[in-house]
Amino acid sequence: MNLRWFRCEAARLPQGWSGPANIGVDDRGIIQSIGGEVPEDETAEVLRGCVMPGMANLHSHAFQRGMAGLAERQVAEGDDFWGWRALMYRFAAQLEPDDVRAIAAQAYLEMLRAGYTSVCEFHYLHHQRDGKPYATDRMAAALIEAARETGIALTLLPVLYRTSDFGGAPLPEQRRFTQTPEIFLERLAAFEADGAHIGVAFHSLRAVPAVDIEYVLARLRSDMPVHIHVAEQTAEVERCRAHTGQTPAAWLLDHCPVGKHWALVHATHVSEAEIAGLARSGATAVLCPSTEGNLADGIFPFDAYRAQGGRFGIGSDSHVTVDPSEELRWLDYGARLARRKRMPENEGPPHRGADLWLAAADTAVSGRAAGAIAVGQHADWIVADGEAAALAGRSGDAVIDTLVFGARTNLVRDVVVGGKVVVRRGRHQAAPDIKARYVRTVRALAGTA
Amino acid sequence: MNLRWFRCEAARLPQGWSGPANIGVDDRGIIQSIGGEVPEDETAEVLRGCVMPGMANLHSHAFQRGMAGLAERQVAEGDDFWGWRALMYRFAAQLEPDDVRAIAAQAYLEMLRAGYTSVCEFHYLHHQRDGKPYATDRMAAALIEAARETGIALTLLPVLYRTSDFGGAPLPEQRRFTQTPEIFLERLAAFEADGAHIGVAFHSLRAVPAVDIEYVLARLRSDMPVHIHVAEQTAEVERCRAHTGQTPAAWLLDHCPVGKHWALVHATHVSEAEIAGLARSGATAVLCPSTEGNLADGIFPFDAYRAQGGRFGIGSDSHVTVDPSEELRWLDYGARLARRKRMPENEGPPHRGADLWLAAADTAVSGRAAGAIAVGQHADWIVADGEAAALAGRSGDAVIDTLVFGARTNLVRDVVVGGKVVVRRGRHQAAPDIKARYVRTVRALAGTA
Repeated sequence: MNLRWFRCEAARLPQGWSGPANIGVDDRGIIQSIGGEVPEDETAEVLRGCVMPGMANLHSHAFQRGMAGLAERQVAEGDDFWGWRALMYRFAAQLEPDDVRAIAAQAYLEMLRAGYTSVCEFHYLHHQRDGKPYATDRMAAALIEAARETGIALTLLPVLYRTSDFGGAPLPEQRRFTQTPEIFLERLAAFEADGAHIGVAFHSLRAVPAVDIEYVLARLRSDMPVHIHVAEQTAEVERCRAHTGQTPAAWLLDHCPVGKHWALVHATHVSEAEIAGLARSGATAVLCPSTEGNLADGIFPFDAYRAQGGRFGIGSDSHVTVDPSEELRWLDYGARLARRKRMPENEGPPHRGADLWLAAADTAVSGRAAGAIAVGQHADWIVADGEAAALAGRSGDAVIDTLVFGARTNLVRDVVVGGKVVVRRGRHQAAPDIKARYVRTVRALAGTA
Repeated sequence: MNLRWFRCEAARLPQGWSGPANIGVDDRGIIQSIGGEVPEDETAEVLRGCVMPGMANLHSHAFQRGMAGLAERQVAEGDDFWGWRALMYRFAAQLEPDDVRAIAAQAYLEMLRAGYTSVCEFHYLHHQRDGKPYATDRMAAALIEAARETGIALTLLPVLYRTSDFGGAPLPEQRRFTQTPEIFLERLAAFEADGAHIGVAFHSLRAVPAVDIEYVLARLRSDMPVHIHVAEQTAEVERCRAHTGQTPAAWLLDHCPVGKHWALVHATHVSEAEIAGLARSGATAVLCPSTEGNLADGIFPFDAYRAQGGRFGIGSDSHVTVDPSEELRWLDYGARLARRKRMPENEGPPHRGADLWLAAADTAVSGRAAGAIAVGQHADWIVADGEAAALAGRSGDAVIDTLVFGARTNLVRDVVVGGKVVVRRGRHQAAPDIKARYVRTVRALAGTA
């Protein structure tokens, strides 16, 4: 087998830090050798600094990156999540596929630079402005093209969206989102036939009737990633209880094969029993602290969940922040402030920066073998800038602790996705073009072009 | 009067955004003209982008920047503030004046780049390792030199530190901090004679007996800034109540002339009556959300305080984060999460990013006329990078909203302090030297040199 070789000064393997080590990657981008000898007639690309797993961005609505900072004002529809949503719908209503491509490319570029190597795109803006489907799915194509241009590993999650609320018809503003389960499955098959890397998403229990969820699940292969918004807002939890007699997390655990390929996004408002059930199921709680703070959602019971061995990951969601360190830092600060102790008092796993980073990176819900530097995993890595002032005097896991808790400027120097170096010394080759197109697009959308 | 002229594309004046405007600054760095004509024989330096007030960093322990990220682990002394403090004391114990200068210069440089134009340095590491005073105050000199080298406007706050707790003698670890009020006042006079820009600080009520506070206050000019740590920890509040019969904020409001030159740092655990009293006094609550989150202190009742018209500012304190946007963002997210609404429901001032930035910048407790772009104020400005992708399509206060709530990379391009451009296009002339010295210093301290 022909391998491409990297010479790492130090790499964070699952069992701890290696010294200088060669890593061989095959032409699919998968690690085949750690610590092997580079054949005499080949060269190894040297990665200077500390090599560690890249972060998985488990929840993204890429187009919302274009409105980050524009929603920090009073909105006629109310100063809560639902008012923000009205603003977001107005922004989404005007977008064409080229706009989505321009905005997504900038978002994905920013993700890479910040240390995300993969992204799960929760994609529900399917149709034309009037609600009619595109002849070919130009919106999904725009996202796939944006990922290709930047080099980030995309998991496209086409979203099934049916209703505005439990038992309700969709709102006019949702006409670009909705489709039947039959067409949803047809498109899914078409994506797979085209070679797209996909999972599926149900928008939420309020937006997808139980019968449709069951219909779709019965027709999926068993290892397909399944993502769903759950319990982000108390109003949603109450409506679910009124309609089904159960809260969203409890309903899912009772009625669906929730397991290790399932991602429950937010899961903010969950009971102790739900925390235990969710942890036991092997599913991943996808936490988006910056968006959840911005939207005033609430705080996930991180300590209790983690003490039970619950798996978690992070997402930049609305992209008010695109920085895995900030997400992890404030996820933990939320827990610290709740417990009034810097470290958890129970017997759960520790909460050092390195523990949080490695746990969040090691995901089972992107459908991509990645998240640890190990044979059989994709070579999705970041290299921390060993010359950065912030890392002076740090070694071993203190490097990751500092990346998460002591960072001020971006400490990510190089980014490798599937064995390809896509960011080198902080620079991405396509950045100038992507930025210029993004600026043009957003100015035109804002009417300031 | 000979003025130095700036040509601003747009400037955020107290009454709103200007169009293109000339601003004339005198040789003390104070604005003397806004909108005037540049004399024919003179040129104006063009500031491209949006000019707005620089941020005041109201609370800094510069040396702690060298340990940011190193304290994210279990500590034998306990996983709370007090355990962290033990670690911090061990770090402080080994520092020489040259170390402090090297670390402070890096911290001040990072502050400037992030948009802070001034810093109040809460300085208590006064003496030699064995507790003997330096013949001349080399530690203060190191801080002053670090500020001079970077160009940040420093307010040195020599700290009076007497006891380990209410009625207790100082701990051996505190021997570098303590001095008598008489010597404290002598040194203060010496600093002023040397032309240093100073205020005073009492470490806290637990560290300074009431009699010493009274003694010092009786001997200060009335407009001297006075800073004090207040109610950061519940244990401290309880001990204060046991010792004095009052909580710290209540005691201060009752026994001291708390007014507009007073900065109450943290004020985390305050009652409704204290909030009202503090707001009425005109004092500034200095909030340090990233440090308070990191140390698991608690959350300041921001909504209630602001609804009463309370003045506030921010500080980077332990420097786990050096970014005014992150401080303001999470200060507001804390309030949003508590109220479960994105905007406050009461009649207080709005909480848009621009409101928060301008309110925090406009400080009365640095002893420096700065914080608004107005005649008589120092020319302490930042210029937001109008070419940044994040600011595409933003105009007016949406620029500041985006700076605070939508930022991902540093949007601060130029930084002006007292009419001198100290950061140009993100670069500071002395940065390479300062960084090299910092790296050498921190590596030696960590034993990895």
